[in-house]
Amino acid sequence: MQLQSLDDVLVEQLADLHSAETQLVQALPQVASSASTPELRTALEHHLEETRGHVRRLEEAFSELGTSIPKEHCKGMEGLITEGKDVMSAQGDPAAKDAALIAAAQRVEHYEIAGYGTARTLADQLGHDEVKRLLNETLDEESAADAKLTKLATGGMFGSGVNKEAAQRA
Amino acid sequence: MQLQSLDDVLVEQLADLHSAETQLVQALPQVASSASTPELRTALEHHLEETRGHVRRLEEAFSELGTSIPKEHCKGMEGLITEGKDVMSAQGDPAAKDAALIAAAQRVEHYEIAGYGTARTLADQLGHDEVKRLLNETLDEESAADAKLTKLATGGMFGSGVNKEAAQRA
Repeated sequence: MQLQSLDDVLVEQLADLHSAETQLVQALPQVASSASTPELRTALEHHLEETRGHVRRLEEAFSELGTSIPKEHCKGMEGLITEGKDVMSAQGDPAAKDAALIAAAQRVEHYEIAGYGTARTLADQLGHDEVKRLLNETLDEESAADAKLTKLATGGMFGSGVNKEAAQRA
Repeated sequence: MQLQSLDDVLVEQLADLHSAETQLVQALPQVASSASTPELRTALEHHLEETRGHVRRLEEAFSELGTSIPKEHCKGMEGLITEGKDVMSAQGDPAAKDAALIAAAQRVEHYEIAGYGTARTLADQLGHDEVKRLLNETLDEESAADAKLTKLATGGMFGSGVNKEAAQRA
């Protein structure tokens, strides 16, 4: 890794996020299909569509910067997806598994919130306004996805969330 | 993994966080010593002390629940620490490297914010008030650590943040 300037750090952050989002596009269909609660499945399927858009926005950002996308494998996202797969293969109560699935998905969202937050700050400081705008759009969607998962877990959105359902069965 | 109830999910979340924090206690001294900006080094050293306290609080939480700590290896944190090590071994400008180090550290903070947020919600729903209190204390410290890293990167705290310094050199 070569970090001679903040521009190098920005490119490295975008490459990391591009790998992260690409891994997520591969993983999300299986995660969504393993959800028992229909609302959780729908939310994850919706986020899969958004994630495909995030990959496209990152490609636009690289195009704006006039830089090809460095080959990089995001080890952070790899670990987070492995954790999600461990939950998917767990034995037990469907609502308890959904609660654990939401926990894994929120770790993924927070990885991205941290990553896009950093990249947006760098783009701002370096005067890359269009890149900043693109990153802001995705950051807003990641934050909204995280908030939706919290509502699903706590029942704010659907009256009885998956956590309450699993607690009642326990 | 067995997830028969929300109590199982809570124990699994706490075991994951215990492994994450323990890995962090091992990794943070090297991360702190690789920082060039004195304020960043001090912040990371301070967070190492807090992290030792987080391990102790998790052990108290298990004791409250009357449960031994399940052996678990947090693969999410393993990936995040590997990313941090990649930055530490990068070539380049010290201020640019510090900016990348902060980016890696904020991914770690967000992993923990997501994890403690989930665990606190579960403890609340299950009526484990003392566990909830312990998790809340740590969550506040993780959020404060994340905010401090943002200030260090953007210069809000020290006038000229590491990002501005690297941008000026670029």
